[in-house]
Amino acid sequence: MARKVAVLVAGSWGTALASVLADKEMNVVIWTRNESQKDEINRLHTNGRFLPGVTLSPNLTATTDMHEAMDGAEAVVIVAPSAAIREVTRQMRPFWTEEMLVVHATKGFETESLKRISTVIAEELECEEGRIVVLSGPSHAEEVVKRCPTTVVVAALDDSEAIRAQDLFMNPYFRVYTNRDMVGVELAGALKNIIALGAGMSDGLGFGDNAKAALLTRGLAEITRIGAEMGANPLTFAGLAGVGDLVVTATSRHSRNWRAGYMLGEGKKLETVLSSMGMVVEGIRTTKAAHTLSDKYKVQMPITQQLYQVLFEGLDPRTAVEALMGRDKKTEMELMSIETWETWHK
Amino acid sequence: MARKVAVLVAGSWGTALASVLADKEMNVVIWTRNESQKDEINRLHTNGRFLPGVTLSPNLTATTDMHEAMDGAEAVVIVAPSAAIREVTRQMRPFWTEEMLVVHATKGFETESLKRISTVIAEELECEEGRIVVLSGPSHAEEVVKRCPTTVVVAALDDSEAIRAQDLFMNPYFRVYTNRDMVGVELAGALKNIIALGAGMSDGLGFGDNAKAALLTRGLAEITRIGAEMGANPLTFAGLAGVGDLVVTATSRHSRNWRAGYMLGEGKKLETVLSSMGMVVEGIRTTKAAHTLSDKYKVQMPITQQLYQVLFEGLDPRTAVEALMGRDKKTEMELMSIETWETWHK
Repeated sequence: MARKVAVLVAGSWGTALASVLADKEMNVVIWTRNESQKDEINRLHTNGRFLPGVTLSPNLTATTDMHEAMDGAEAVVIVAPSAAIREVTRQMRPFWTEEMLVVHATKGFETESLKRISTVIAEELECEEGRIVVLSGPSHAEEVVKRCPTTVVVAALDDSEAIRAQDLFMNPYFRVYTNRDMVGVELAGALKNIIALGAGMSDGLGFGDNAKAALLTRGLAEITRIGAEMGANPLTFAGLAGVGDLVVTATSRHSRNWRAGYMLGEGKKLETVLSSMGMVVEGIRTTKAAHTLSDKYKVQMPITQQLYQVLFEGLDPRTAVEALMGRDKKTEMELMSIETWETWHK
Repeated sequence: MARKVAVLVAGSWGTALASVLADKEMNVVIWTRNESQKDEINRLHTNGRFLPGVTLSPNLTATTDMHEAMDGAEAVVIVAPSAAIREVTRQMRPFWTEEMLVVHATKGFETESLKRISTVIAEELECEEGRIVVLSGPSHAEEVVKRCPTTVVVAALDDSEAIRAQDLFMNPYFRVYTNRDMVGVELAGALKNIIALGAGMSDGLGFGDNAKAALLTRGLAEITRIGAEMGANPLTFAGLAGVGDLVVTATSRHSRNWRAGYMLGEGKKLETVLSSMGMVVEGIRTTKAAHTLSDKYKVQMPITQQLYQVLFEGLDPRTAVEALMGRDKKTEMELMSIETWETWHK
């Protein structure tokens, strides 16, 4: 009998990860609340709203019944928007059993509480946080479903769970690395969306590649600083979940965060941007979360600060980017905050 | 009387840096061997072969007479191809005086000797290497001449020389950071061209953004490892001369290294690529240099290794990229070579 895996829910990334597993001849069941989406996946083998033009594997089916999705599954893969994570996990809880691997691939924080996604899942499952695996890295769903070569990283406090996830997902076009720094992988994946928004904004303003590269470099330094304060290994930010994902998110039109930033840079209002996207833009929520976290941990995050003002206080994007270019910093190591790194590596 | 600066020679980056200085009302004299290029710059205020469509400042003139270029200059900016650095410096030597600031912006190594550019210049000037300043960072010439916001880093062993260079170049659209890690800035700028070639090749093969992001991340780790062995601060590779320049070089069609890689990925032969570029592709020479350096310092550089085989031993690009994707590495920290970082930061 084929190995069974449940995937919650049927967004673009959830569907792409389901396809990776379906290509390994697993029986993959996607849970969705949406009846017509379920019918579309089961009858037409497409998910047109999220992955237009793609035909899905017949090994991949959908259901609106959580019991049906979870029953007999060896693993559950949670890829809900950050705002829905707690609710989805709560619905899944009655059907989850101790031996079932739990992987999540959601990049963000719980709104209000600012908890990491793995913390929220562990709370709802009443299990050790070490059991939860995060999957992250440079991976556009649109390319994964076309079987383009892709590398990701899986991290868990409990090594054996990370290795289970690596074995589950690894296939010839989808390479999976392990990393013990769960906190770093989770934070890098979430925080990089802020910088992708900023890069899109710079592009939307027509500022060019030189300006964008400067923004990415300074953005990477900024999210590394806050990450290190929150317990991450700074080195993780130089890896696939950090630099890798930042590059792919900030330089590609596939990226929702980049696109949202681009439209803001063009002068569109936040409401207009959100309504025209038709999908969740995690970077917007994450900017709000990081703005609060930078106060809490007393870490300077100038890019986050400027973006927050553009998103929520009506600051003109051009003024924001110019303010960033004009900051009175003079040595590069000040920018990198070498002290943070040295503290970590002493 | 206006401050005078000499710039050697009239390539795209030399001309762009000359324009930055001319915008500060300096008297900038570019030295070139080419009579018709000299006439074009002086009469038409253009440098059509290297910066088509751009009108240069009237503060910027050209000469083929080295004495005329250097006489009364407070600074000399050397931006010759790596293969010409020693010869150009030798020609400049009789007209150089101790008080003259020396900045170079050439990304590569001397062929055969594998010396860094600043070492070669200091040898020819018979001065302390600490006197030489390197300027590097994410900066397409095409954008700088259009006054797009750009940030660069200047580094020298002697702080006061770096600060002189910062004061010389800094203007409202051209921000200059200082860094004490001259070796790191010089190596990052040179070595990143290898990874840009590889990224172009991956794009030319049609492998997608996910694959390219993985290549950039692993490439950054690889050049950081060899850099650290050669005395650089690994942190410099996370800064403007490393990540910043890598992003801009590897994701933009402006980049000669990326374009050369792209054509190789499409299946063109090296000779065809070189003759169609019409400009020096430093990344090709640098791949050869780094291949030797990786042996000398006993540092694994798998991407450099595969590129070397494509460039000089006829390996098929697809086989090379697939070999890179298929390497048997399992943990991300192995990839990052955490030991190197920890050694540096202990």
